[in-house]
Amino acid sequence: MASAGGPSPGRLASAYSEVQTSRLHHSLPLPSVLTSHFSLVDGPPSSASGNPDKIAELFPSLFGQPSAALVPAKVMAEGKPLKVGVVLSGGQAPGGHNVICGIFDFLQDRAKGSTMYGFKGGPAGVMKCKYVELNSDFVYPYRNQGGFDMICSGRDKIETPEQFKQAEDTANKLDLDGLVVIGGDDSNTNACLIAEYFRGKNLKTRVIGCPKTIDGDLKCKEVPTSFGFDTACKIYSEMIGNVMTDARSSGKYYHFVRLMGRAASHITLECALQTHPNIALIGEEVAAKKETLKNVTDYITDIICKRTEHGYNYGVILIPEGLIDFIPEVQKLIAELNEILAHDVVDEAGVWKSKLESESKKLFEFLPPAIQEQLLLERDPHGNVQVAKIETERMLISMVETELEKRKAEGKYKGQFIGQSHFFGYEGRCGLPTIFDASYCYALGYGAGALLQSGKTGLISSVGNLAAPVAEWTVGGTALTSLMDVERRHGQFKPVIKKAMVELDAAPFKKFASLRDEWALKNRYISPGPIQFIGSGSDAVNHTLLLELGVQA
Amino acid sequence: MASAGGPSPGRLASAYSEVQTSRLHHSLPLPSVLTSHFSLVDGPPSSASGNPDKIAELFPSLFGQPSAALVPAKVMAEGKPLKVGVVLSGGQAPGGHNVICGIFDFLQDRAKGSTMYGFKGGPAGVMKCKYVELNSDFVYPYRNQGGFDMICSGRDKIETPEQFKQAEDTANKLDLDGLVVIGGDDSNTNACLIAEYFRGKNLKTRVIGCPKTIDGDLKCKEVPTSFGFDTACKIYSEMIGNVMTDARSSGKYYHFVRLMGRAASHITLECALQTHPNIALIGEEVAAKKETLKNVTDYITDIICKRTEHGYNYGVILIPEGLIDFIPEVQKLIAELNEILAHDVVDEAGVWKSKLESESKKLFEFLPPAIQEQLLLERDPHGNVQVAKIETERMLISMVETELEKRKAEGKYKGQFIGQSHFFGYEGRCGLPTIFDASYCYALGYGAGALLQSGKTGLISSVGNLAAPVAEWTVGGTALTSLMDVERRHGQFKPVIKKAMVELDAAPFKKFASLRDEWALKNRYISPGPIQFIGSGSDAVNHTLLLELGVQA
Repeated sequence: MASAGGPSPGRLASAYSEVQTSRLHHSLPLPSVLTSHFSLVDGPPSSASGNPDKIAELFPSLFGQPSAALVPAKVMAEGKPLKVGVVLSGGQAPGGHNVICGIFDFLQDRAKGSTMYGFKGGPAGVMKCKYVELNSDFVYPYRNQGGFDMICSGRDKIETPEQFKQAEDTANKLDLDGLVVIGGDDSNTNACLIAEYFRGKNLKTRVIGCPKTIDGDLKCKEVPTSFGFDTACKIYSEMIGNVMTDARSSGKYYHFVRLMGRAASHITLECALQTHPNIALIGEEVAAKKETLKNVTDYITDIICKRTEHGYNYGVILIPEGLIDFIPEVQKLIAELNEILAHDVVDEAGVWKSKLESESKKLFEFLPPAIQEQLLLERDPHGNVQVAKIETERMLISMVETELEKRKAEGKYKGQFIGQSHFFGYEGRCGLPTIFDASYCYALGYGAGALLQSGKTGLISSVGNLAAPVAEWTVGGTALTSLMDVERRHGQFKPVIKKAMVELDAAPFKKFASLRDEWALKNRYISPGPIQFIGSGSDAVNHTLLLELGVQA
Repeated sequence: MASAGGPSPGRLASAYSEVQTSRLHHSLPLPSVLTSHFSLVDGPPSSASGNPDKIAELFPSLFGQPSAALVPAKVMAEGKPLKVGVVLSGGQAPGGHNVICGIFDFLQDRAKGSTMYGFKGGPAGVMKCKYVELNSDFVYPYRNQGGFDMICSGRDKIETPEQFKQAEDTANKLDLDGLVVIGGDDSNTNACLIAEYFRGKNLKTRVIGCPKTIDGDLKCKEVPTSFGFDTACKIYSEMIGNVMTDARSSGKYYHFVRLMGRAASHITLECALQTHPNIALIGEEVAAKKETLKNVTDYITDIICKRTEHGYNYGVILIPEGLIDFIPEVQKLIAELNEILAHDVVDEAGVWKSKLESESKKLFEFLPPAIQEQLLLERDPHGNVQVAKIETERMLISMVETELEKRKAEGKYKGQFIGQSHFFGYEGRCGLPTIFDASYCYALGYGAGALLQSGKTGLISSVGNLAAPVAEWTVGGTALTSLMDVERRHGQFKPVIKKAMVELDAAPFKKFASLRDEWALKNRYISPGPIQFIGSGSDAVNHTLLLELGVQA
């Protein structure tokens, strides 16, 4: 089933732009511990993020294993050749190609004679043993380039006993010493389950995870950030900075910008810290304060009215994609709608509405007609409302418009309001990785190789001290079981790596909260401009990371 | 009415990003003719772009005046101090601030003791004598920065006799030697009318225009491009390149990208040449071939079906914002709708539709319901359909979807189609100007100063030889009347600078046409990446300009 190991037809068919070419030739620095002899030092036994007894039951072989750190060593044995597979899992994030290059270069440098396979199209490629053998020519055109197209990704999971068996067959067939799973929280949980399964079966194949997601919600003490977050936020911030300049220049638009990142609002928070918008909604705060859609609308409308008094009929508002997932009453309405629409037909006269509870009915009627229609018509294959398809920025524009008209009629608002909607999403997740993401990913991959060579399994590649120069970065692996808790699903305990949400008492949110009133009325816009690969700002690390590391941003 | 000449509160209130700061400190080169002694050489008498006798009637003082070129001179008299006003007119374009800086620096360098005024909020600022006196501190924070917020812009025109009188009063009150109008085709036409009026009244105030528009449709032999086009296209191309990588990586999306630029399709053509999409629709070609919406839908659908046969269920499609303005049958439908809706009510039963001619009725029923609704509900203050508000990319997705379902039912299509809509507009028109736009604008402004000093009026600042290094650029002024033709409006002849449309027999379109079949089925995507201000590609000039100048792109 292997494709020929030759260069990728996709990339070769394209000419490269000057910037792509210059990035291709950019040589990557490594943390100094990776540039010389090193050895692995184990930490103390680990536990779990929650419910350690349940995690111990689910991971009998792996639970409690220590995390590991690379430290300089005087001598180092020549590494034996390894057979290593790599798979990309889930949505794209800038830097994925560099993780693969990092593993590849580690094997070339430190385990001469090794073989590397790239599984095609995500975990399905592992199950179907669909792969390509990676060699220097094949890997080369993807160095420092965006996207996941070297081997592509997929959203399948290895879940059923049959699927684990398929993965086992692949590992045996290719005689794999190691498998690197590059993915988000779900994919790393899956990686740990595979590691446990392989260990339980006494397979020699070790499994190492790598933290990928532009959403920034896979992180912990040892994994300070997921890759791709830095690049995506900088691309969105470039665009936000531009529409801020537009708002200030034309003086007549309110730009409502919805930003990708459904579960957590890290992207919105980071972009807010980079650009200083008039308003940025943080889903975690909306949830903590149990706000209603009316509260959110009023919050925006109040600021718009105050800005009019200051002479500003323009502004920029950032909205996390997942905002309405954080609003309890909306969740309730959607649950009721799913229930009703599963059994009833929506009659034009609206009799079906009587089945909604009174609060939900009130909320439904408060929604703009276009959104009502979307809630009723856009269903996924299971018949559920497709929340992700709701264009929250348009919904808010419409609700704010209605509220402003009301206030105008009451003589409380005298401004002019033109809302302009934007969604910044796809353009961020496949951009050329920043210098930070390029180096970070390369170190993650190179480190993953070192972990495999030392026989480690069930760890997530962990690179730390990220605010320092690359040479000083720390390298190691964190026990995946130590990040886990359980959730009860369909009567069973399932292991999960809990998504890291925006913490309302941590430095990044507190900094934002301390400044936002000023940003709301005075225009403190910053335009970060396009990502630079040389000179000013090219080495910058994202603000939230700096704040979380306790470094002055 | 003058504000204090101090630094701008808007910009000072903001911190600058590292990239903004680095651009602030970037010193601009000038064409060598502007760096030493020069004199002005007049060309032969000029005519008009069309109907020279009518233009001669409309511009009795200015018609026939020669264009002028700056040439090196052995000696040069010290320039007398001048009083010069500047005004920004119409939509933002990256580089506008640098035109102002160019004029300012010219006056500082070559006409010591001069005074410069910035009229606020566009031509209304001229009429109302609302201005700010520009000085070094005030101008400084805007050097090489995007936006128009230094003095802001506006869309008013100086049209009625009263308004011309107001402009005259302002010129007299400020004792202006010159006025520079930075704008598009309409604004430059207006500039020429003001120049004629001032000359006719024997005012000393000269008027010089500067070619601004991201749309790229204000150009001629002497004015090879309008400023802002280069930056906007590069920003859009960055985003397009990213969604291309996304399409290739995920393998499941058709990204339909609508690009700003309503009248002409230059932006779409330039972005196509930069990025090599699978499909790019060029309005001028659609019009020339008298295509229907069904033709356009079929063209896209055919390529999607062929791509499925090649194994591709993804792609990228570029759509000019003004597409439907180019489709004759849509124009006809809209004209009929405007007529009907001005007098009749839209009844739910649809009786009103019987008033549409049969072809228009058929077209209307072919349109997706959401677009039908938009056509009926979204009216401008004059009751007309707001064509600009129609989201062409969503309309096309919907029509292609319907056609694909039909073909699927007929067994002619077996693929999966997910359309993803994008509009790239506002984020491009206020970006940090590229090195090209920054230098070009600075030369335009500096040259405008030189033209005013030489007593010229009714010229548009013209900088040429743009594919060469800046030092070799030519500098001069082109008689605005020579760019003009007349149009009959409300029974009167009105002077117009005809918009430069995409020429189907010129090099840029021909290059695109020769490559598009290959781009359609094979993926030749190029990802230009973010604009760089140092190193690779930072000095690049846009492709269409290179092709139009006969330089190999």
